[in-house]
Amino acid sequence: MIDSPISRYRKYWNEIVNYQNILSCLHWDMEVTMPSNGSEERAAQVTQLSSLCHKIFISQDFERLIEGASNYIHKISPPEKILLERELQILQRERDRAIKLPIHIVENFANTTSLAHSVWVSAKKNQNFKEFQNSLNDIVNTSKEIAELYGYKNERYDALLENYEIGMTGNMLSNLFADLKKSIIPIVEQAKTYSNPFPHHISMQKQRHFNERLPIALGLPKNSFRLDVSAHPFSTSLGRYDKRITTRYYENDPLSSIFGVLHETGHSLYEYGLSQMNDYPSPLTNAVSLGLHESQSRLWENQIGRSKAFWEYYYPIILKDFELSGSILSFEDLFNFVNTTSKTKIRVEADQITYNLHIILRFEIERDLISNNLSVSELPEIWNSKMKEYFDLEIQNSSEGVLQDIHWSSGLFGYFPTYTLGNIYSAQLFHCFINHHGDFWNDVKKAGNFSKLLNWLNKNVYQKGKIFDPTDLIQDVTGQPPNSSYLIEYLKTKQQEVG
Amino acid sequence: MIDSPISRYRKYWNEIVNYQNILSCLHWDMEVTMPSNGSEERAAQVTQLSSLCHKIFISQDFERLIEGASNYIHKISPPEKILLERELQILQRERDRAIKLPIHIVENFANTTSLAHSVWVSAKKNQNFKEFQNSLNDIVNTSKEIAELYGYKNERYDALLENYEIGMTGNMLSNLFADLKKSIIPIVEQAKTYSNPFPHHISMQKQRHFNERLPIALGLPKNSFRLDVSAHPFSTSLGRYDKRITTRYYENDPLSSIFGVLHETGHSLYEYGLSQMNDYPSPLTNAVSLGLHESQSRLWENQIGRSKAFWEYYYPIILKDFELSGSILSFEDLFNFVNTTSKTKIRVEADQITYNLHIILRFEIERDLISNNLSVSELPEIWNSKMKEYFDLEIQNSSEGVLQDIHWSSGLFGYFPTYTLGNIYSAQLFHCFINHHGDFWNDVKKAGNFSKLLNWLNKNVYQKGKIFDPTDLIQDVTGQPPNSSYLIEYLKTKQQEVG
Repeated sequence: MIDSPISRYRKYWNEIVNYQNILSCLHWDMEVTMPSNGSEERAAQVTQLSSLCHKIFISQDFERLIEGASNYIHKISPPEKILLERELQILQRERDRAIKLPIHIVENFANTTSLAHSVWVSAKKNQNFKEFQNSLNDIVNTSKEIAELYGYKNERYDALLENYEIGMTGNMLSNLFADLKKSIIPIVEQAKTYSNPFPHHISMQKQRHFNERLPIALGLPKNSFRLDVSAHPFSTSLGRYDKRITTRYYENDPLSSIFGVLHETGHSLYEYGLSQMNDYPSPLTNAVSLGLHESQSRLWENQIGRSKAFWEYYYPIILKDFELSGSILSFEDLFNFVNTTSKTKIRVEADQITYNLHIILRFEIERDLISNNLSVSELPEIWNSKMKEYFDLEIQNSSEGVLQDIHWSSGLFGYFPTYTLGNIYSAQLFHCFINHHGDFWNDVKKAGNFSKLLNWLNKNVYQKGKIFDPTDLIQDVTGQPPNSSYLIEYLKTKQQEVG
Repeated sequence: MIDSPISRYRKYWNEIVNYQNILSCLHWDMEVTMPSNGSEERAAQVTQLSSLCHKIFISQDFERLIEGASNYIHKISPPEKILLERELQILQRERDRAIKLPIHIVENFANTTSLAHSVWVSAKKNQNFKEFQNSLNDIVNTSKEIAELYGYKNERYDALLENYEIGMTGNMLSNLFADLKKSIIPIVEQAKTYSNPFPHHISMQKQRHFNERLPIALGLPKNSFRLDVSAHPFSTSLGRYDKRITTRYYENDPLSSIFGVLHETGHSLYEYGLSQMNDYPSPLTNAVSLGLHESQSRLWENQIGRSKAFWEYYYPIILKDFELSGSILSFEDLFNFVNTTSKTKIRVEADQITYNLHIILRFEIERDLISNNLSVSELPEIWNSKMKEYFDLEIQNSSEGVLQDIHWSSGLFGYFPTYTLGNIYSAQLFHCFINHHGDFWNDVKKAGNFSKLLNWLNKNVYQKGKIFDPTDLIQDVTGQPPNSSYLIEYLKTKQQEVG
């Protein structure tokens, strides 16, 4: 493809990717290394470069190059032709969406949510929802306006969901979540609660030593990633061979840093796999959806990181690294700690089982909010009554209730459900994998070897990029559409295992 | 200046500055944190953003905004008017220079020097100048072509010198360096040589602990900088309140990391001071020249960091931090170590006295090279004969001779002399300061307090930005043009102090 209309359009795309990766570098630096006084100017740098990125993405120049590539495509033979058609199709879909929003709406929304952030922080601190109500009202109204501009077939919420999970709708989610909800509520009721956290202080240095080998053990290539510390764990990609993950350290809760690393390594393994696709960078070599992305962090964190085999291999290593004896920390205790189920009012503190109920609650509320079935002023009441109904917990104030999450203050409606979609996809994918690789747990237990799983995911998920939409990808790999029964089965089995 | 032609042109300038700071972030990350496999893609990101920066700097849009501002200037009253006139004048001068180089020459030169880098690395490794000769010949020829495009009054070398030291010429340098050269050669002959390095192994952790307080002690504000590790110490600015410095650690040579920090802190103090100018960011809030920049690193590293008062204050602290007793490391030994004079073939290993002779040698050679008085093939011979003449040292092979520095392989002709200009300026500036602040050394010795010096530099040098050209700035502050006698005096005094 030397100097064809295809290569010319791809060259332009490559420039966009370069700017996106530069933005990732600015973000990573901001969270990990930047001196605190640099924040204001950094925000201006990020805004300027994001705006440039948006402009060149929706530009006439790019339009013409895409048209040129489209007109050239008949000269190419299958199977390359089919991939190119798909690539140009999803690119057009994304550009059409981006062009639908006038620039003044984008800038206005960025400004509104930016101002709302500090209002939310203050309201949460003061346990006073009323303080935040007007700001949230503005955000909800603009979100509705944006949804109308995007357009939708069935309900307005679907238009926002498409930002994160193309092809997914409120009705589909509601069906997927129905059985899950029914199954989790009794699990929550029966759940033993381990009120003690991991009862040993472990220095950050010892935790680091244990954590540093995990990403490599799971399959991230040395010299193509780094592990750092930030206030909230995250992962990002700065280039094909430059993936970054972070975690945080609590000396009284060493499991927190470990599961941070496992979760973020999952995200980075997906990103790394995408980057190894043949035509990198092309519109196909990106994550298919947030739900799929989250399925990879959850799969490596939960299906692997909370499995018996994983800890059978790592138990002697953690004893050695943490300088603990088996009589102080038994295998059974450790395994129970990593699989604790307990009721909490706070989503980010929830375990892998109850977490989904927190998400379903949010999904139900935000869907009604966007579809005009609920007003912002009714939020605290509906939140608290659902917490009572699902968890049997009494919310005392809005800081431990409706104000706890940052998402809505940032205008992220439609984002929450992708967390539980991630859990559903991960259980369904892993079920499919383990059906054909029964000896995998032996590799893990005996040698800490995860290569069968990584190879399978690379072939079936990572190397597929955006060739399919998320629901079709799940269908293609597992033979059926997204189905929450595998997650339900996994959670029930886990519950019994810990018993 | 709300929405005037001035504010509109400044807004555009601010965008250029944002891109430059983003580039600094990419460079810093590359040197300090990036996983090694990320280098190829990072190079592409840097090239793309540099090219965008260049394009908008020389654009017609910017031209029109500058014209608009120029036409508006008569409506503004002094003293603001004078500063604005100066600002637009130096901006035009820099744009004129940038526009003189056709884009294909810029790209071609970037490509030639990029390819030459690996050839130089290999030739240096193989101690084989001939391997590098053709590449260097190309670089020299393109440099001459570039000098012709820039234009000059007297000699071609002057055109390249202007890249780094506006207003400086080969003739002026040759006059400035003449006495210096005459004075250093006998010092070099007489110099005691301390063949032992600092004879104690000190862990990196202990060195770090000592180093971390130095930038703050010298005057960099906490939360507006950070100190890291890189292969070669450097400093850079990522924004008004975001300065970065690095050093490197050798357990068998702890003085190396300390003087790295002092040197780079000097650069960052200058950058920080520039950033605090009223109209930041404007074309006036940048460093006036490389020589002035270097004068600040040298001043803090040498005039301060190698002074008796500095070590009288830090001697007990370093004993404590390094866990050494006074009988193991006496004050006299320490003071001699930091002021060692010895002959070396390698510039970067040279002490503050002999260093200047290495620079003068390079200046003489590169000036002749650019002015056609010398051909590339004659370089090793002339290099070796000058090393014999100035240092009485026999060069065995080109790796310890003409191939030792990266500069020429990167096309940096005219860069070397700014190192010694920095030494000349620093001695002249410091002489002027200490004349009026005789009690400064007492502050240092008793309390490690450098605030009088920093205040003086801020007022007289840093806050002047580019209001004057470098020679005029020195004249303005010290009452006379650049004069090497202060450096000569300083070096002689130092020699006696140690002797």
